[in-house]
Amino acid sequence: MEVGFVGLGVMGRYMAANLMKAGHRVTVYNRTNGRTDELAAMGAGVASSPREAAMGRDAVITIVTDDAAVLAVSEGPDGVLAGLAAGALLIDMSTISPETARRVAAAAQTMGAGYLDAPVTGGDIGARDGTLTIMAGGRERDFEVALPLLQAMGRRIVRIGEAGAGQTMKLVANLVSGLTLMVAAEGIALGLRLGLSLDLLNEVLPNSSAQSFEVRKLLDRYGDDAWLPGFSVQNRLKDLRLAVEMAKASGFDLPLAGPALVRYQAHADAGAGELDESSYLRKLLG
Amino acid sequence: MEVGFVGLGVMGRYMAANLMKAGHRVTVYNRTNGRTDELAAMGAGVASSPREAAMGRDAVITIVTDDAAVLAVSEGPDGVLAGLAAGALLIDMSTISPETARRVAAAAQTMGAGYLDAPVTGGDIGARDGTLTIMAGGRERDFEVALPLLQAMGRRIVRIGEAGAGQTMKLVANLVSGLTLMVAAEGIALGLRLGLSLDLLNEVLPNSSAQSFEVRKLLDRYGDDAWLPGFSVQNRLKDLRLAVEMAKASGFDLPLAGPALVRYQAHADAGAGELDESSYLRKLLG
Repeated sequence: MEVGFVGLGVMGRYMAANLMKAGHRVTVYNRTNGRTDELAAMGAGVASSPREAAMGRDAVITIVTDDAAVLAVSEGPDGVLAGLAAGALLIDMSTISPETARRVAAAAQTMGAGYLDAPVTGGDIGARDGTLTIMAGGRERDFEVALPLLQAMGRRIVRIGEAGAGQTMKLVANLVSGLTLMVAAEGIALGLRLGLSLDLLNEVLPNSSAQSFEVRKLLDRYGDDAWLPGFSVQNRLKDLRLAVEMAKASGFDLPLAGPALVRYQAHADAGAGELDESSYLRKLLG
Repeated sequence: MEVGFVGLGVMGRYMAANLMKAGHRVTVYNRTNGRTDELAAMGAGVASSPREAAMGRDAVITIVTDDAAVLAVSEGPDGVLAGLAAGALLIDMSTISPETARRVAAAAQTMGAGYLDAPVTGGDIGARDGTLTIMAGGRERDFEVALPLLQAMGRRIVRIGEAGAGQTMKLVANLVSGLTLMVAAEGIALGLRLGLSLDLLNEVLPNSSAQSFEVRKLLDRYGDDAWLPGFSVQNRLKDLRLAVEMAKASGFDLPLAGPALVRYQAHADAGAGELDESSYLRKLLG
């Protein structure tokens, strides 16, 4: 297919490359120009605006930072929606609120275009290896059109429901992973403080009922010096906040997410926003 | 070896049976008599006190509910220590505070006996299948003597350090698993409340960075009607409290364990003490 691709961040650059490897013709746009060179060297076209990335394509994919960034690349005279043909498909793979997803979906459908929210989980490694889990919300027929593209970027592709439902699932998954990261850090920090070695924690925790993806990641990264994202503290914080807001809007009490958000905010405020999210473990160790 | 076995609870009954299957001669004691019949039918001897279970044995294993129960079966005229020969070995596999473990260790060593704290993780399934992870604290030579017994009950046997160190590791592991259970329940409950189906949560969460042993267990058990332990709310609560006390004693701040303990206590106070720990998910759903 002819695909526009907007957003060449930690995830997007790999995902666009995987689309090209699967034989799709890709035209990229990124707010900062530097990021486009790598894809252009692989044969991608380069657009000068989101609108231009969308013009004449069968589908355009956006994957940017937050609700405001999605609206910025979607709406307005230079936005994707201004370039998208009736009958074409907008696939937003950012992690944002279900409300914003439904707003963009409505705009796309008004002009006769299709829409999917299709946020992903699996991190930069999953993006690189094409093993992402993708949670899609939108009409069944739009999902079917998108499937070959999604399969080029991920391994497990699940339609959750109508537009916005992919985001609902993603925020639930990220709430669980974010809080799991924090409690895993809390336990590992306590163990280290009490004199248990990293080797012993490595031997026991992943082989006990304490096992989790986040325990594994923290133990693997604790030895590293770099702590560069990966998934940054500020992105993790954004997703926690979106989940808490989504719960609040539905009147559902989240017992631990509230205190967790306060603690993680304090970590970001102390200057860790750009670091990998797992830096929280080092903060606890003081 | 000739082994005394004190405590035939959810875990102990399977562990004693696995010792017998490995060829050891086992004499059991349990506070309530009914539990001994099953083991006696398999050929175990039955003792009328912890002291009698220990007399003349190479090793005696205790696995009971809490610090008070360990002291009750260990000390006093009918306790294990009153029956244990110099040169024999006391292995306590309960989950208790490192302090109490060191107190019993000192008493055993004073009378020339060996001591290991050797708490386990893996639950009733791991106890049944002999796949427990066992975290041992004590002298190297006591660990070596105990190894064939521990290998009959578990798959991964790790010496953590001196007496008490097994408990330190166990409390850290249980802190992480307990908090992971709570945050997993929080996210799953939110998802269900927002209309995501159990099938979809099952498809996505274990294949995302939200993955954990506890997510898997909660999703598996949510469909069940029974909610019988397994691992009970009151036992989970006990372990959380021990971990919080251990952290406090070392001056280490646990950001989320405090609020978590308050919430889980409220769950127990509402009458759930005997239920499986995963009943917390249903409580959140109201």
